[in-house]
Amino acid sequence: MNAINQLKEEFTEIRRLQYITALLGWDTQVNLPPGSYKGRSEQVSIMEKITHEKLISEKIGKLISECEKISDLDTIDSAMVREARRLYDHEVKIPTELVIEIAKTSILSHQAWEKAKEKSDFSIFEPLLSKMIELEIEVAKKLDTGPTLYSTLIDLYEPGATYSWIKSVFDGLKPRLVSIIDKLTSSNDKPNFSILTRKYDPKKQWDFSVEVVKKLQFDTNFGRQDKSVHPFTTTLSSTDTRITTRINENFFSPGIFGSIHECGHALYEMGFKKEIHDTILADGASMGIHESQSRMYENIIGRSKEFWTHFFPILKNNYFKDTLKDVNLDEFHRAINTVQPSFIRVEADEVTYALHIILRFEIEHDIIEGKIESAEIPTIWNEKFEKLFGLQVMKDSDGMLQDVHWSGGAFGYFPTYALGNLYGAQIYSDALRKHPSLPEDYKKGDFTNILAYLRENVHQHGKIYQPRDLVKRITNEDLNPDYFIEYIENKFYPIYKI
Amino acid sequence: MNAINQLKEEFTEIRRLQYITALLGWDTQVNLPPGSYKGRSEQVSIMEKITHEKLISEKIGKLISECEKISDLDTIDSAMVREARRLYDHEVKIPTELVIEIAKTSILSHQAWEKAKEKSDFSIFEPLLSKMIELEIEVAKKLDTGPTLYSTLIDLYEPGATYSWIKSVFDGLKPRLVSIIDKLTSSNDKPNFSILTRKYDPKKQWDFSVEVVKKLQFDTNFGRQDKSVHPFTTTLSSTDTRITTRINENFFSPGIFGSIHECGHALYEMGFKKEIHDTILADGASMGIHESQSRMYENIIGRSKEFWTHFFPILKNNYFKDTLKDVNLDEFHRAINTVQPSFIRVEADEVTYALHIILRFEIEHDIIEGKIESAEIPTIWNEKFEKLFGLQVMKDSDGMLQDVHWSGGAFGYFPTYALGNLYGAQIYSDALRKHPSLPEDYKKGDFTNILAYLRENVHQHGKIYQPRDLVKRITNEDLNPDYFIEYIENKFYPIYKI
Repeated sequence: MNAINQLKEEFTEIRRLQYITALLGWDTQVNLPPGSYKGRSEQVSIMEKITHEKLISEKIGKLISECEKISDLDTIDSAMVREARRLYDHEVKIPTELVIEIAKTSILSHQAWEKAKEKSDFSIFEPLLSKMIELEIEVAKKLDTGPTLYSTLIDLYEPGATYSWIKSVFDGLKPRLVSIIDKLTSSNDKPNFSILTRKYDPKKQWDFSVEVVKKLQFDTNFGRQDKSVHPFTTTLSSTDTRITTRINENFFSPGIFGSIHECGHALYEMGFKKEIHDTILADGASMGIHESQSRMYENIIGRSKEFWTHFFPILKNNYFKDTLKDVNLDEFHRAINTVQPSFIRVEADEVTYALHIILRFEIEHDIIEGKIESAEIPTIWNEKFEKLFGLQVMKDSDGMLQDVHWSGGAFGYFPTYALGNLYGAQIYSDALRKHPSLPEDYKKGDFTNILAYLRENVHQHGKIYQPRDLVKRITNEDLNPDYFIEYIENKFYPIYKI
Repeated sequence: MNAINQLKEEFTEIRRLQYITALLGWDTQVNLPPGSYKGRSEQVSIMEKITHEKLISEKIGKLISECEKISDLDTIDSAMVREARRLYDHEVKIPTELVIEIAKTSILSHQAWEKAKEKSDFSIFEPLLSKMIELEIEVAKKLDTGPTLYSTLIDLYEPGATYSWIKSVFDGLKPRLVSIIDKLTSSNDKPNFSILTRKYDPKKQWDFSVEVVKKLQFDTNFGRQDKSVHPFTTTLSSTDTRITTRINENFFSPGIFGSIHECGHALYEMGFKKEIHDTILADGASMGIHESQSRMYENIIGRSKEFWTHFFPILKNNYFKDTLKDVNLDEFHRAINTVQPSFIRVEADEVTYALHIILRFEIEHDIIEGKIESAEIPTIWNEKFEKLFGLQVMKDSDGMLQDVHWSGGAFGYFPTYALGNLYGAQIYSDALRKHPSLPEDYKKGDFTNILAYLRENVHQHGKIYQPRDLVKRITNEDLNPDYFIEYIENKFYPIYKI
């Protein structure tokens, strides 16, 4: 067997080991009896150990080097070698002791963060956050793949992205968003958000979410939908992608929009072309591209007037006749598109959302580049927050303690959320240009054409192309936030009667 | 670290690998989307390969030999070494090519059996059955642990049991059972079985089964109950044992008695003492002892008058008021204890059940010892069946094609089912002698004392003692079928008004 096929075979086994670990994770969140977390975490450790040992084996190192010498590899094979190198280097460059120290520290750090958040007391978290920062800086130094430490960490989640590139994108975005938000919030005709905080029977919410997700073409022959405390998507084989949904009895949005969001992730994972099944390329191009798919479904499609032209009558007549008896389509559509500066990122609307990310991006950079100490974070956060949102943070649980990411050392992850929105708007604009009747499809409950477009342009390729290359391939230009701004203005000014 | 601790550590990792494989299996039966069986089977293969390679490693072979030289091992440690040797030899003695051939053949054989059963056409299955027999004989020859080939295979499921020992037990049992069945079936006052084949709402059946299983002390902190096509019990860590239930809308028995049966298995697995958690001893002593626990709960406890004295009013008043409005406790109790010779083993009552097993035991012996050819099995089966049950087998799907076992090469497994009934009656008789008020407990819905007895005498020990030794330890005698006969006579003569 030649080197490239041997490499494929080795990474197919690694992929399968990762799928098994993913099942352990899925089951932990969906099924695990409360008394068995310890046993499960030992199993996860074993799988990680086996996968790590396989990855760093001499055999794999040699195979990658051999394959890198082959000059006439086709697109897929050369992408495989590129990703194999990336994964191999990552495992090899970080010493086992550092991996173990991070694993141990992040458990303690997570516990401290939970307590700190609950009590809104940063001092509980500060020493462990400080330790996590130190360890992540160490990781960035060992990896040394980017022009700066923070860029190296960003690259873990968004291959090819750098701090300065994202900064230039965000710098253009920030003032325009602030100005749009000013306009919207000074409107005299705002949506009635309270429609969504009535009591919605959980069983009916669940059934409705199942109906919607099926209409979006989530194929239960190759996946399932379950309930969990935190909604997520996971892939357990090339033919098994699972989503979860969280229902809130007193708030309609999380159940349905969470389901649509996860469905967007799942359709991506379900759409990889057969050739890359079970390979290292059976994965999203990046966190940002993944998020572009989930948020495109959740927001651009799922919060559109046309979408609800189809689904609102179903929702009202078949599920919530009483609850929604005084609500019409227009009021409902406006309510689900309420824009309101608020403290909590995960509850933010799609307009203010990016500002939450920009705040974190700026602070993360300064943390990792050693410009601020962990102890200073709350003060800096609150100052920046007030400038951006015009709101005073009264407690750190509404401020820098709200997100789990830093407690696990995930610095560089946040920007991918905003990149996802931007990628999504740009790709969707291309879809609309090529298929102007997409919104008419939605009115009829038909989501086949949008999925066919995404399968063709995004999904099938998996990790073959790097994120920026993929977007360029599809739209013929680099990431351009104009599309997002245009989308926001065209959508929200009418909703706010501006 | 000394050899014994090293051995423990190695086998703890093996145990955890087995638990991970068990999760893959559980998920396959409970959750797997229909399109993803292939991906899953590849994952199972990988786990089996990893486990096998670890087991047959030189390191483990050496450790076992070292440990066998230690003279002063305590009971637990020496049991660990014994079981490690058993498992190691099993993996080492059977060549990989044979394992692969069995795996491949059993897939084809299973498919052929399914088709043959569906069409009741033995000729479809015969060539593959013949091949499976050949391969299992090969396995027995390679293992060579028992006095005869068939004994060697029996020992895989029931350590220490031999053909001649089981034969002597069954020879004593057979005529006595036949005579009891004759008496029961000639009674003029038989139970009204049709009570159970009314329409029982599946949701209510499920809820009732959950209520019963909880009362029996199944602890959902350390396990769960789900639905599956074939009910089973599986353990996914020392703190995670799961059971499944199958509901039949038109037949009350499978749902509830299946649940109680699996609960009996689960309580055993949940009751291992902490010292043996995650070790090679965290397992049932044998298939027979395991079955003794499940069938004790299902039949001796779960079909007793006292059990239903507590549960029948609940069942009738809270679940099936209309369905059972014309049925009283006595009629219900008689119905669930109907004895009736019939063709299908899995539907058999507890009196005729052993005859189904004896039939298979006799035929299996002759197959493995080369006394009959696979082509002759249907004729021999039907002749023997008519002698034992007085019924003529009209189609092989009601005869030798009914069970899945032989298609997978599981020769020697069947006798453990009957041994389970016998072990169960003998152990329960000891429990009753020591705690005569157990039946009074059940009337009050109290199952703590029986569980405490079983935990103390059976469950906590896991695989520390060999099955026959365990029974001797508890009851001071070797397996004695008198207890089963006595139990049957005392229970069924009154039910049949004899």
